Amino acid sequence: MHGINCIGVLTSGGDAPGMNAAIRAVTRTALYNGFEVRAIYHGFKGLVEGEIVPFRSENVSNIIQLGGTILKTARSQAFMTYEGRCRAYDNMQKEGIDALVVIGGDGSLAGAREFAAEFDLPIVGLPGTIDNDLSGTDTTIGYDTALNTIVQAVDKIRDTAMSHERLFFIEVMGRNAGFLALNGAIATGAEAAIIPEIATEVDQLGELIRSGFNHHKNSSIVLVAESEVTGGAMGLADRVRKEYPEYDVRVTILGHVQRGGSPTAADRILATRMGEAAITALTEGQRNVMVGIQNDQLVYVPFSKAIRDDKPINRNLLQTIKMLSI
Amino acid sequence: MHGINCIGVLTSGGDAPGMNAAIRAVTRTALYNGFEVRAIYHGFKGLVEGEIVPFRSENVSNIIQLGGTILKTARSQAFMTYEGRCRAYDNMQKEGIDALVVIGGDGSLAGAREFAAEFDLPIVGLPGTIDNDLSGTDTTIGYDTALNTIVQAVDKIRDTAMSHERLFFIEVMGRNAGFLALNGAIATGAEAAIIPEIATEVDQLGELIRSGFNHHKNSSIVLVAESEVTGGAMGLADRVRKEYPEYDVRVTILGHVQRGGSPTAADRILATRMGEAAITALTEGQRNVMVGIQNDQLVYVPFSKAIRDDKPINRNLLQTIKMLSI
Amino acid sequence: MHGINCIGVLTSGGDAPGMNAAIRAVTRTALYNGFEVRAIYHGFKGLVEGEIVPFRSENVSNIIQLGGTILKTARSQAFMTYEGRCRAYDNMQKEGIDALVVIGGDGSLAGAREFAAEFDLPIVGLPGTIDNDLSGTDTTIGYDTALNTIVQAVDKIRDTAMSHERLFFIEVMGRNAGFLALNGAIATGAEAAIIPEIATEVDQLGELIRSGFNHHKNSSIVLVAESEVTGGAMGLADRVRKEYPEYDVRVTILGHVQRGGSPTAADRILATRMGEAAITALTEGQRNVMVGIQNDQLVYVPFSKAIRDDKPINRNLLQTIKMLSI
Amino acid sequence: MHGINCIGVLTSGGDAPGMNAAIRAVTRTALYNGFEVRAIYHGFKGLVEGEIVPFRSENVSNIIQLGGTILKTARSQAFMTYEGRCRAYDNMQKEGIDALVVIGGDGSLAGAREFAAEFDLPIVGLPGTIDNDLSGTDTTIGYDTALNTIVQAVDKIRDTAMSHERLFFIEVMGRNAGFLALNGAIATGAEAAIIPEIATEVDQLGELIRSGFNHHKNSSIVLVAESEVTGGAMGLADRVRKEYPEYDVRVTILGHVQRGGSPTAADRILATRMGEAAITALTEGQRNVMVGIQNDQLVYVPFSKAIRDDKPINRNLLQTIKMLSI
Repeated sequence: MHGINCIGVLTSGGDAPGMNAAIRAVTRTALYNGFEVRAIYHGFKGLVEGEIVPFRSENVSNIIQLGGTILKTARSQAFMTYEGRCRAYDNMQKEGIDALVVIGGDGSLAGAREFAAEFDLPIVGLPGTIDNDLSGTDTTIGYDTALNTIVQAVDKIRDTAMSHERLFFIEVMGRNAGFLALNGAIATGAEAAIIPEIATEVDQLGELIRSGFNHHKNSSIVLVAESEVTGGAMGLADRVRKEYPEYDVRVTILGHVQRGGSPTAADRILATRMGEAAITALTEGQRNVMVGIQNDQLVYVPFSKAIRDDKPINRNLLQTIKMLSI
Repeated sequence: MHGINCIGVLTSGGDAPGMNAAIRAVTRTALYNGFEVRAIYHGFKGLVEGEIVPFRSENVSNIIQLGGTILKTARSQAFMTYEGRCRAYDNMQKEGIDALVVIGGDGSLAGAREFAAEFDLPIVGLPGTIDNDLSGTDTTIGYDTALNTIVQAVDKIRDTAMSHERLFFIEVMGRNAGFLALNGAIATGAEAAIIPEIATEVDQLGELIRSGFNHHKNSSIVLVAESEVTGGAMGLADRVRKEYPEYDVRVTILGHVQRGGSPTAADRILATRMGEAAITALTEGQRNVMVGIQNDQLVYVPFSKAIRDDKPINRNLLQTIKMLSI
Repeated sequence: MHGINCIGVLTSGGDAPGMNAAIRAVTRTALYNGFEVRAIYHGFKGLVEGEIVPFRSENVSNIIQLGGTILKTARSQAFMTYEGRCRAYDNMQKEGIDALVVIGGDGSLAGAREFAAEFDLPIVGLPGTIDNDLSGTDTTIGYDTALNTIVQAVDKIRDTAMSHERLFFIEVMGRNAGFLALNGAIATGAEAAIIPEIATEVDQLGELIRSGFNHHKNSSIVLVAESEVTGGAMGLADRVRKEYPEYDVRVTILGHVQRGGSPTAADRILATRMGEAAITALTEGQRNVMVGIQNDQLVYVPFSKAIRDDKPINRNLLQTIKMLSI
Repeated sequence: MHGINCIGVLTSGGDAPGMNAAIRAVTRTALYNGFEVRAIYHGFKGLVEGEIVPFRSENVSNIIQLGGTILKTARSQAFMTYEGRCRAYDNMQKEGIDALVVIGGDGSLAGAREFAAEFDLPIVGLPGTIDNDLSGTDTTIGYDTALNTIVQAVDKIRDTAMSHERLFFIEVMGRNAGFLALNGAIATGAEAAIIPEIATEVDQLGELIRSGFNHHKNSSIVLVAESEVTGGAMGLADRVRKEYPEYDVRVTILGHVQRGGSPTAADRILATRMGEAAITALTEGQRNVMVGIQNDQLVYVPFSKAIRDDKPINRNLLQTIKMLSI
């Protein structure tokens, strides 16, 4: 088995629902296959500082349904430096950790990639991010839950009394990726999604206003991806107040609620299958790959490809939104 | 029966979960007791403009579980004027409406009071507001649902990775009333609630900081009532950044999600009992009263008392929060 | 302080949502007031067998939102015997536990009462049961959550396609008490509640059928308290099939889902206030009382009164259900 | 456009969450593309009996979030006969309906297939069933919601106090298909799934018992697909009581709650995309096909293939369950 006896697992970056299901699957699959398991708290920071504890099956009992991550995450300045990474490597040596499973988003996988290269370590990544912005995988752990959280929040907002001609901008996460805004808009029957992917091509707000979106004389709901290029909900509202003062505009920023909550069935299943696949990957001698899912098949994606910022959205959905808001 | 043959029902002001359950109970209790029912859409605005339709039992089928109000609400400038109220009265005459049930908050009940006095009309109010700021009633329709919505949102925020020494301000509704902030803080295990009732007596933020709230080295969550006197979450965050720059402060404003959602069991039961009581009140010749609940008994509260701005919060709970955040 | 230095806390009997919030409040209030705390696992069984661990503030971190009880519960044959209770007492002595807080239903409080009398121990009880069948308190920890769980389940059942003349019996918990069935029926707009309190007085099923409940030609939903005297949902369905074969009858038994789930805001607040009051009670020299809530005031209720099986339901609600199902 | 001017839409068979989102998408896409729309109530029964109404955009406002189907469903004996189908065809002629969109499960699509063949009608089907048992499509409308409903219910059951060696059988839907049981077991961390697909090959209960499933000394949860070949939860419990009397066995049958509830984001998006595709299919001259989704691409599947009873489950997941329940 390529000399691997003991596997470390950590979560890193912004947390995502389903990370606990992944930790559970990694731990138990490893134990079932005869490996030892070390849990590293607070991500790479904990690796640098030595927050490492042995994990048995009981440590991951009854966590599959919990939001957040029992291993916590943190940003680490130290791990950004070569000295920090040396300390991290030393801690791995000291604890006898031969391989790592890193659960996180693009920043975390980029860090993992560098660390793996520098110290010739077998590292497998799992895509844990609500933004769904990792390439080589159809979806990421946490995305489905965040989408449902958004949908439930927008449903509540739509419940409330709808005066004439109000324009609600609801800001959702996704700094460089419009998946949550676009699919959230489809799922809530919103009038539009304003997303970063086309922000430089089209004046999305202008188009929306010109399309006469509010001919129903009801409130209109627009989902906006938090992003510098879209302007965010606040930026758009400011622009409406200036350019189209006839609209009564309201802003809701969903914020941190989108990262939390008990994971959905789909996220738990995805996280479980990916967690198992991470151990299989290490057993097969894979390294420096992220486990992805494509057409319901688990695949290995080189880190370099996974973190490339080019995952395409389905542009047809923009037309669907438009057609269905008649 | 004091000459009442036909009862109108409307919802007014900010909507609240449970209003539909109240509309259903008013309608069916009235029909069961031999009255005719007219539903008025868009609140007093609809009364002025004549948006009035007869309601049968089927009109309120399968609505008990819905958030918002099927009758919609609106603000009406016209109803603020004597001319507008004359038109409203004329519409009632034209439709044969002898009495009104008005479901809404303090502004709505104040409007109802004036209208009733001016035209000598039997009007009964139901306390429909998430803020719980009506006097003479232990609780209001929508408050329990809003409180649960807040609790679920804060649970999600607490799920997310907790770095050291972050201070989350979560703003909840309640312009002049701290019920949601105070009880929301108890229910979520928050470190503090910052409420308008004591804003002029105490420097609540200063006390919180000085108490060394974050000795756990975990993120701290503080619920803040949206209010000019508290400063709101944004105002407090600004102050922290200026006065206590060592804290990493974050803001979430829950906003309109708090008004929506399927009503809780308690709100449905309250709304149903109060809706039934509104018809009983009219049958008994009551007028110009709000139905309230005190110690699980339905009572009649004069409008003048209900809208008096003096409902006390339970100050002991502030001490409870402090004690339990050790 | 009457010689109390160390307080033990346990949960017993069927578990109820909010028990964790109570454990947290008991633990932290005790610590805040200078007591030591011992947590006893698996209820009286753990007391007999010595499953006792010291609790600090961290032991109850982040549990307020969890269903079930972190201390587990169990039935104990041994504690039913004098020898078993002697062992329990010895364990208390050994651990230095001077007083107990027992969270549970009527069986648990009856056990606590006997134990307290036999060994002259200060014991305070908290009403933890979804059935709401303890006297001297308006409501019990877990009841509001169970009621909401029922309401959400019935909402889902009502969603499904409604053929003509189907009769759904939905069985809910409450062996000797119809609170869940009665208030669940009000909150879901059900056609009837069949409850034990009036089972010997009235042929509830016969009345329902004779009232021509299904003149809407839609499915009818009836909530049935699990009970020998009502016959339960299965018993009623059998009777319908025999006596009224023209009806298409369906049964759903909600079962164990009613005990679980994250507690509602109301249950968390109730549990928190009661947990705090339990320590206050011990501090004030109270013993052999259950903490209750009456008209939003915390009160002490002698065990003998709390477990008396005479808590009245609000019979007016039966008429409300009938009137609103027109 | 092949002579199609007016499109009828109906839902049929057991209802499924997301059907309303599909009705909305069918209606608005049709209207947007210049077709007229007729809604048919109560499925094929309504087609036979002429329950047909014109639909405009407003008829499908604010329904995307609702469970069940606003068009209702029913079983129709008449449509089983040639005479009945003639009446259905006559009603279509009378109303000017040129093509049909049928949303339902395998029975409904089989009926649609026969009807289309007999009268040479363009009919397009959408897979609306919680069971996910239609071939040629990765998933069906309603499956994701039902799976989440199951997961939330099992989470609640797991919350409750876990005595030693209890064996919970939780019965979920899926008469001939184990998708809900198998994936539900993965998502809840259950000890096993007992499914029809392998019922004749393996003694699943015997294997479970022999594997010593309960060496944790905690309650074990097993999800069972409702099915004659599995025996269902009741049948298995009876067998355990007879063959393994040392186990304390409990049964919960989730039943009709699985069909209801607000659809998840995934079901709303799937239903919306498929509803749009149904109109595209008719525009392109497609007929007698079901819209399916494969690898996130919308495809057309001949009815004959869709209703073939051969959709394979992922058997690897059985091993995953076993490995993760250590």
